[in-house]
Amino acid sequence: MRVLGIDPSLQSSGFGLIEDEAENLEAIVYGVIKPDRAASFPQKLNDIRTELERIIDLYSPQEIAIENPFYARNVKTAISLGQVRGAVLIAIASRQRQLYEYSALEIKKAVTGYGQAEKDQVQRMVKILLNLEDDRMPLDASDALATAICHTYHRRISFDWKPGRKTGKS
Amino acid sequence: MRVLGIDPSLQSSGFGLIEDEAENLEAIVYGVIKPDRAASFPQKLNDIRTELERIIDLYSPQEIAIENPFYARNVKTAISLGQVRGAVLIAIASRQRQLYEYSALEIKKAVTGYGQAEKDQVQRMVKILLNLEDDRMPLDASDALATAICHTYHRRISFDWKPGRKTGKS
Repeated sequence: MRVLGIDPSLQSSGFGLIEDEAENLEAIVYGVIKPDRAASFPQKLNDIRTELERIIDLYSPQEIAIENPFYARNVKTAISLGQVRGAVLIAIASRQRQLYEYSALEIKKAVTGYGQAEKDQVQRMVKILLNLEDDRMPLDASDALATAICHTYHRRISFDWKPGRKTGKS
Repeated sequence: MRVLGIDPSLQSSGFGLIEDEAENLEAIVYGVIKPDRAASFPQKLNDIRTELERIIDLYSPQEIAIENPFYARNVKTAISLGQVRGAVLIAIASRQRQLYEYSALEIKKAVTGYGQAEKDQVQRMVKILLNLEDDRMPLDASDALATAICHTYHRRISFDWKPGRKTGKS
Protein backbone atom coordinates (compact mmCIF):
# COMPACT_ATOMS: atom_id res chain seq x y z
CA MET A 1 0.00 0.00 0.00
CA ARG A 2 1.43 3.35 -1.07
CA VAL A 3 0.34 6.46 0.79
CA LEU A 4 1.05 10.04 -0.25
CA GLY A 5 1.08 12.67 2.50
CA ILE A 6 0.73 16.34 1.58
CA ASP A 7 1.37 19.47 3.65
CA PRO A 8 -0.22 22.27 1.58
CA SER A 9 1.28 25.76 1.52
CA LEU A 10 1.57 28.42 -1.18
CA GLN A 11 5.35 28.90 -1.17
CA SER A 12 6.44 25.40 -0.19
CA SER A 13 4.06 22.43 -0.10
CA GLY A 14 5.61 19.29 1.35
CA PHE A 15 4.95 15.85 -0.10
CA GLY A 16 6.04 12.43 1.10
CA LEU A 17 5.26 9.01 -0.30
CA ILE A 18 5.67 5.91 1.82
CA GLU A 19 5.18 2.20 1.24
CA ASP A 20 3.54 0.23 4.03
CA GLU A 21 4.55 -3.40 3.42
CA ALA A 22 4.16 -6.11 6.07
CA GLU A 23 4.26 -3.61 8.97
CA ASN A 24 7.41 -2.10 7.51
CA LEU A 25 7.41 1.56 6.46
CA GLU A 26 9.67 2.78 3.69
CA ALA A 27 10.02 6.26 2.19
CA ILE A 28 9.79 6.15 -1.62
CA VAL A 29 10.11 9.85 -2.39
CA TYR A 30 9.68 13.16 -0.60
CA GLY A 31 10.32 16.85 -1.19
CA VAL A 32 8.70 20.24 -1.56
CA ILE A 33 6.79 21.98 -4.34
CA LYS A 34 7.93 25.59 -4.70
CA PRO A 35 6.07 27.55 -7.37
CA ASP A 36 8.04 30.25 -9.18
CA ARG A 37 7.97 33.29 -6.91
CA ALA A 38 7.53 35.56 -9.93
CA ALA A 39 4.41 33.69 -11.10
CA SER A 40 0.94 35.15 -10.61
CA PHE A 41 -1.14 33.78 -7.74
CA PRO A 42 -3.47 31.70 -10.01
CA GLN A 43 -0.39 30.34 -11.80
CA LYS A 44 1.15 29.29 -8.47
CA LEU A 45 -2.03 27.41 -7.57
CA ASN A 46 -2.05 25.72 -10.96
CA ASP A 47 1.63 24.79 -10.59
CA ILE A 48 0.89 23.10 -7.24
CA ARG A 49 -1.99 21.22 -8.85
CA THR A 50 -0.08 20.03 -11.93
CA GLU A 51 3.03 19.10 -9.91
CA LEU A 52 0.93 16.96 -7.53
CA GLU A 53 -0.80 15.31 -10.49
CA ARG A 54 2.64 14.52 -11.92
CA ILE A 55 3.74 12.97 -8.60
CA ILE A 56 0.53 10.89 -8.43
CA ASP A 57 0.98 9.73 -12.04
CA LEU A 58 4.64 8.85 -11.46
CA TYR A 59 4.36 7.01 -8.13
CA SER A 60 0.74 5.79 -8.08
CA PRO A 61 -0.16 6.17 -4.41
CA GLN A 62 -3.39 4.32 -3.59
CA GLU A 63 -4.43 6.72 -0.84
CA ILE A 64 -3.70 10.35 -0.06
CA ALA A 65 -3.67 12.04 3.34
CA ILE A 66 -3.56 15.72 4.17
CA GLU A 67 -3.78 17.84 7.25
CA ASN A 68 -7.24 19.24 7.90
CA PRO A 69 -6.79 22.93 8.77
CA PHE A 70 -9.31 23.64 11.47
CA TYR A 71 -7.19 26.51 12.63
CA ALA A 72 -6.16 29.73 10.92
CA ARG A 73 -5.10 32.98 12.53
CA ASN A 74 -7.68 35.11 10.77
CA VAL A 75 -10.10 35.30 7.85
CA LYS A 76 -7.46 36.54 5.39
CA THR A 77 -5.08 33.69 6.21
CA ALA A 78 -7.99 31.26 6.03
CA ILE A 79 -8.99 32.34 2.50
CA SER A 80 -5.38 32.05 1.38
CA LEU A 81 -5.00 28.61 3.00
CA GLY A 82 -8.31 27.52 1.47
CA GLN A 83 -7.17 28.43 -2.03
CA VAL A 84 -4.04 26.28 -1.75
CA ARG A 85 -6.10 23.46 -0.25
CA GLY A 86 -8.46 23.78 -3.23
CA ALA A 87 -5.51 23.22 -5.60
CA VAL A 88 -4.49 20.08 -3.68
CA LEU A 89 -8.04 18.68 -3.59
CA ILE A 90 -8.45 19.23 -7.33
CA ALA A 91 -5.29 17.21 -8.02
CA ILE A 92 -6.66 14.41 -5.80
CA ALA A 93 -10.09 14.47 -7.50
CA SER A 94 -8.69 14.69 -11.03
CA ARG A 95 -6.66 11.54 -10.34
CA GLN A 96 -9.65 9.78 -8.67
CA ARG A 97 -7.91 9.24 -5.37
CA GLN A 98 -9.64 9.08 -2.01
CA LEU A 99 -8.86 11.86 0.46
CA TYR A 100 -8.13 11.17 4.12
CA GLU A 101 -7.81 14.02 6.58
CA TYR A 102 -6.19 14.31 9.98
CA SER A 103 -5.80 17.20 12.38
CA ALA A 104 -2.31 18.54 13.18
CA LEU A 105 -2.78 17.14 16.68
CA GLU A 106 -3.53 13.63 15.39
CA ILE A 107 -0.53 13.71 13.07
CA LYS A 108 1.90 14.90 15.74
CA LYS A 109 0.51 12.43 18.26
CA ALA A 110 0.75 9.50 15.81
CA VAL A 111 4.40 10.20 15.08
CA THR A 112 5.81 11.57 18.35
CA GLY A 113 3.20 10.52 20.91
CA TYR A 114 2.72 14.20 21.76
CA GLY A 115 0.11 16.43 20.09
CA GLN A 116 2.00 19.68 20.64
CA ALA A 117 5.35 18.52 19.25
CA GLU A 118 7.49 21.01 17.34
CA LYS A 119 8.32 20.54 13.67
CA ASP A 120 11.91 19.45 14.38
CA GLN A 121 10.73 16.85 16.91
CA VAL A 122 8.33 15.55 14.24
CA GLN A 123 11.19 15.40 11.76
CA ARG A 124 13.46 13.51 14.17
CA MET A 125 10.78 10.85 14.72
CA VAL A 126 9.96 10.63 11.00
CA LYS A 127 13.64 9.92 10.27
CA ILE A 128 13.74 7.20 12.96
CA LEU A 129 10.48 5.58 11.83
CA LEU A 130 11.51 5.55 8.16
CA ASN A 131 15.16 4.78 8.89
CA LEU A 132 16.31 7.86 6.97
CA GLU A 133 19.52 9.82 7.24
CA ASP A 134 19.10 13.15 5.52
CA ASP A 135 20.52 16.33 7.01
CA ARG A 136 18.81 18.50 4.44
CA MET A 137 15.24 17.19 4.67
CA PRO A 138 12.92 20.24 4.55
CA LEU A 139 10.52 20.54 7.51
CA ASP A 140 7.60 20.72 5.06
CA ALA A 141 8.64 17.34 3.65
CA SER A 142 8.87 15.70 7.08
CA ASP A 143 5.44 17.12 7.95
CA ALA A 144 4.08 15.49 4.80
CA LEU A 145 5.78 12.17 5.61
CA ALA A 146 4.33 12.40 9.14
CA THR A 147 0.85 12.82 7.62
CA ALA A 148 1.36 9.70 5.50
CA ILE A 149 2.65 7.75 8.53
CA CYS A 150 -0.36 8.92 10.58
CA HIS A 151 -2.67 7.56 7.88
CA THR A 152 -0.98 4.14 7.76
CA TYR A 153 -1.27 3.86 11.56
CA HIS A 154 -4.98 4.76 11.48
CA ARG A 155 -5.41 2.31 8.62
CA ARG A 156 -3.82 -0.54 10.56
CA ILE A 157 -5.87 0.13 13.67
CA SER A 158 -9.12 0.41 11.78
CA PHE A 159 -8.36 -2.34 9.30
CA ASP A 160 -10.40 -5.04 11.02
CA TRP A 161 -13.46 -3.17 12.05
CA LYS A 162 -14.00 -0.02 9.97
CA PRO A 163 -12.82 1.18 6.59
CA GLY A 164 -10.62 4.04 7.78
CA ARG A 165 -11.87 7.54 8.16
CA LYS A 166 -12.79 8.19 4.60
CA THR A 167 -13.85 11.80 4.16
CA GLY A 168 -14.82 13.81 1.17
CA LYS A 169 -16.09 16.73 3.12
CA SER A 170 -14.32 19.57 4.72
CA MET B 1 -13.80 42.32 -26.28
CA ARG B 2 -15.38 39.36 -24.48
CA VAL B 3 -15.42 39.38 -20.69
CA LEU B 4 -16.38 36.47 -18.46
CA GLY B 5 -17.66 37.30 -14.98
CA ILE B 6 -17.66 34.61 -12.29
CA ASP B 7 -19.40 34.53 -8.91
CA PRO B 8 -17.75 31.57 -7.11
CA SER B 9 -19.72 29.37 -4.70
CA LEU B 10 -19.62 25.65 -3.92
CA GLN B 11 -23.26 24.79 -4.65
CA SER B 12 -24.00 27.32 -7.37
CA SER B 13 -21.30 29.39 -9.07
CA GLY B 14 -22.68 32.03 -11.42
CA PHE B 15 -21.04 32.81 -14.75
CA GLY B 16 -21.87 35.45 -17.33
CA LEU B 17 -20.15 36.29 -20.58
CA ILE B 18 -20.65 39.66 -22.24
CA GLU B 19 -19.39 41.26 -25.41
CA ASP B 20 -18.36 44.91 -25.22
CA GLU B 21 -18.53 46.21 -28.77
CA ALA B 22 -18.49 49.93 -29.62
CA GLU B 23 -19.88 50.93 -26.20
CA ASN B 24 -22.67 48.39 -26.60
CA LEU B 25 -22.94 45.54 -24.09
CA GLU B 26 -24.44 42.23 -25.10
CA ALA B 27 -24.90 39.04 -23.06
CA ILE B 28 -23.54 36.01 -24.92
CA VAL B 29 -24.23 33.30 -22.34
CA TYR B 30 -24.90 33.07 -18.62
CA GLY B 31 -25.94 30.48 -16.07
CA VAL B 32 -24.86 28.61 -12.96
CA ILE B 33 -22.53 25.68 -12.32
CA LYS B 34 -24.09 23.25 -9.85
CA PRO B 35 -21.87 20.29 -8.96
CA ASP B 36 -23.65 17.01 -8.21
CA ARG B 37 -24.75 17.25 -4.58
CA ALA B 38 -23.82 13.60 -4.03
CA ALA B 39 -20.23 14.17 -5.20
CA SER B 40 -17.35 14.35 -2.72
CA PHE B 41 -16.02 17.79 -1.85
CA PRO B 42 -12.82 17.43 -3.96
CA GLN B 43 -14.94 16.18 -6.87
CA LYS B 44 -17.21 19.25 -6.58
CA LEU B 45 -14.17 21.54 -6.75
CA ASN B 46 -12.86 19.65 -9.77
CA ASP B 47 -16.28 19.87 -11.46
CA ILE B 48 -16.29 23.66 -11.01
CA ARG B 49 -12.80 23.83 -12.48
CA THR B 50 -13.49 21.63 -15.52
CA GLU B 51 -16.85 23.28 -16.25
CA LEU B 52 -15.23 26.75 -16.21
CA GLU B 53 -12.45 25.49 -18.49
CA ARG B 54 -15.11 24.16 -20.86
CA ILE B 55 -16.88 27.56 -20.88
CA ILE B 56 -13.57 29.36 -21.53
CA ASP B 57 -12.73 26.94 -24.37
CA LEU B 58 -16.21 27.29 -25.91
CA TYR B 59 -16.63 31.07 -25.72
CA SER B 60 -13.04 32.37 -25.63
CA PRO B 61 -13.36 35.33 -23.28
CA GLN B 62 -10.26 37.55 -23.45
CA GLU B 63 -10.50 38.69 -19.85
CA ILE B 64 -12.03 37.25 -16.69
CA ALA B 65 -13.35 39.14 -13.68
CA ILE B 66 -14.32 37.79 -10.27
CA GLU B 67 -15.39 39.24 -6.98
CA ASN B 68 -12.57 39.59 -4.46
CA PRO B 69 -13.85 38.22 -1.15
CA PHE B 70 -12.39 40.47 1.52
CA TYR B 71 -15.20 39.51 3.83
CA ALA B 72 -16.18 36.17 5.33
CA ARG B 73 -18.21 35.57 8.46
CA ASN B 74 -15.61 33.37 10.13
CA VAL B 75 -12.49 31.28 9.60
CA LYS B 76 -14.43 28.14 8.64
CA THR B 77 -16.45 29.97 5.98
CA ALA B 78 -13.26 31.63 4.76
CA ILE B 79 -11.44 28.30 4.25
CA SER B 80 -14.45 26.94 2.39
CA LEU B 81 -14.73 30.08 0.22
CA GLY B 82 -10.99 29.97 -0.41
CA GLN B 83 -11.16 26.40 -1.71
CA VAL B 84 -13.83 27.28 -4.28
CA ARG B 85 -11.87 30.37 -5.25
CA GLY B 86 -8.83 28.14 -5.73
CA ALA B 87 -10.79 26.01 -8.22
CA VAL B 88 -11.81 29.13 -10.17
CA LEU B 89 -8.27 30.55 -10.22
CA ILE B 90 -6.84 27.23 -11.45
CA ALA B 91 -9.29 27.24 -14.40
CA ILE B 92 -8.20 30.81 -15.22
CA ALA B 93 -4.48 29.95 -14.98
CA SER B 94 -4.78 26.69 -16.91
CA ARG B 95 -6.37 28.64 -19.77
CA GLN B 96 -3.78 31.45 -19.53
CA ARG B 97 -6.30 34.18 -18.91
CA GLN B 98 -5.68 37.32 -16.91
CA LEU B 99 -7.60 37.69 -13.65
CA TYR B 100 -9.26 40.97 -12.67
CA GLU B 101 -10.77 41.40 -9.23
CA TYR B 102 -13.35 43.79 -7.84
CA SER B 103 -14.93 44.14 -4.42
CA ALA B 104 -18.67 43.49 -3.98
CA LEU B 105 -19.03 47.22 -3.30
CA GLU B 106 -17.34 48.18 -6.59
CA ILE B 107 -19.49 45.72 -8.55
CA LYS B 108 -22.78 46.88 -7.01
CA LYS B 109 -21.80 50.52 -7.40
CA ALA B 110 -20.81 50.06 -11.06
CA VAL B 111 -24.15 48.47 -11.93
CA THR B 112 -26.68 50.18 -9.64
CA GLY B 113 -24.83 53.30 -8.49
CA TYR B 114 -25.23 52.08 -4.91
CA GLY B 115 -22.65 49.94 -3.09
CA GLN B 116 -25.13 48.31 -0.72
CA ALA B 117 -27.66 47.22 -3.35
CA GLU B 118 -29.52 43.92 -2.87
CA LYS B 119 -29.13 41.03 -5.28
CA ASP B 120 -32.53 41.61 -6.90
CA GLN B 121 -31.73 45.30 -7.47
CA VAL B 122 -28.47 44.22 -9.11
CA GLN B 123 -30.39 41.77 -11.29
CA ARG B 124 -32.92 44.41 -12.34
CA MET B 125 -30.13 46.76 -13.49
CA VAL B 126 -28.21 43.93 -15.20
CA LYS B 127 -31.32 43.12 -17.24
CA ILE B 128 -31.78 46.78 -18.23
CA LEU B 129 -28.09 47.28 -19.12
CA LEU B 130 -27.97 44.10 -21.21
CA ASN B 131 -31.48 44.51 -22.60
CA LEU B 132 -32.52 41.06 -21.33
CA GLU B 133 -35.94 39.69 -20.55
CA ASP B 134 -35.58 36.54 -18.50
CA ASP B 135 -37.88 35.82 -15.58
CA ARG B 136 -35.86 32.80 -14.53
CA MET B 137 -32.38 34.30 -14.43
CA PRO B 138 -30.66 32.93 -11.29
CA LEU B 139 -29.34 35.60 -8.90
CA ASP B 140 -25.88 33.98 -9.05
CA ALA B 141 -25.89 34.47 -12.82
CA SER B 142 -26.87 38.15 -12.59
CA ASP B 143 -24.13 38.66 -9.97
CA ALA B 144 -21.63 37.17 -12.43
CA LEU B 145 -22.94 39.36 -15.29
CA ALA B 146 -22.66 42.38 -12.96
CA THR B 147 -19.00 41.50 -12.30
CA ALA B 148 -18.34 41.34 -16.06
CA ILE B 149 -20.13 44.68 -16.57
CA CYS B 150 -18.10 46.24 -13.74
CA HIS B 151 -14.91 45.15 -15.47
CA THR B 152 -15.89 46.61 -18.84
CA TYR B 153 -16.70 49.95 -17.16
CA HIS B 154 -13.36 50.00 -15.35
CA ARG B 155 -11.67 49.05 -18.61
CA ARG B 156 -13.29 51.92 -20.49
CA ILE B 157 -12.41 54.47 -17.83
CA SER B 158 -8.83 53.30 -17.52
CA PHE B 159 -8.30 52.62 -21.21
CA ASP B 160 -6.47 55.84 -21.99
CA TRP B 161 -4.24 56.21 -19.02
CA LYS B 162 -3.58 52.89 -17.28
CA PRO B 163 -3.83 49.25 -18.27
CA GLY B 164 -6.75 48.26 -16.05
CA ARG B 165 -6.31 46.88 -12.57
CA LYS B 166 -4.49 43.74 -13.50
CA THR B 167 -3.97 41.61 -10.44
CA GLY B 168 -2.47 38.23 -9.97
CA LYS B 169 -2.33 38.47 -6.22
CA SER B 170 -4.96 37.95 -3.65
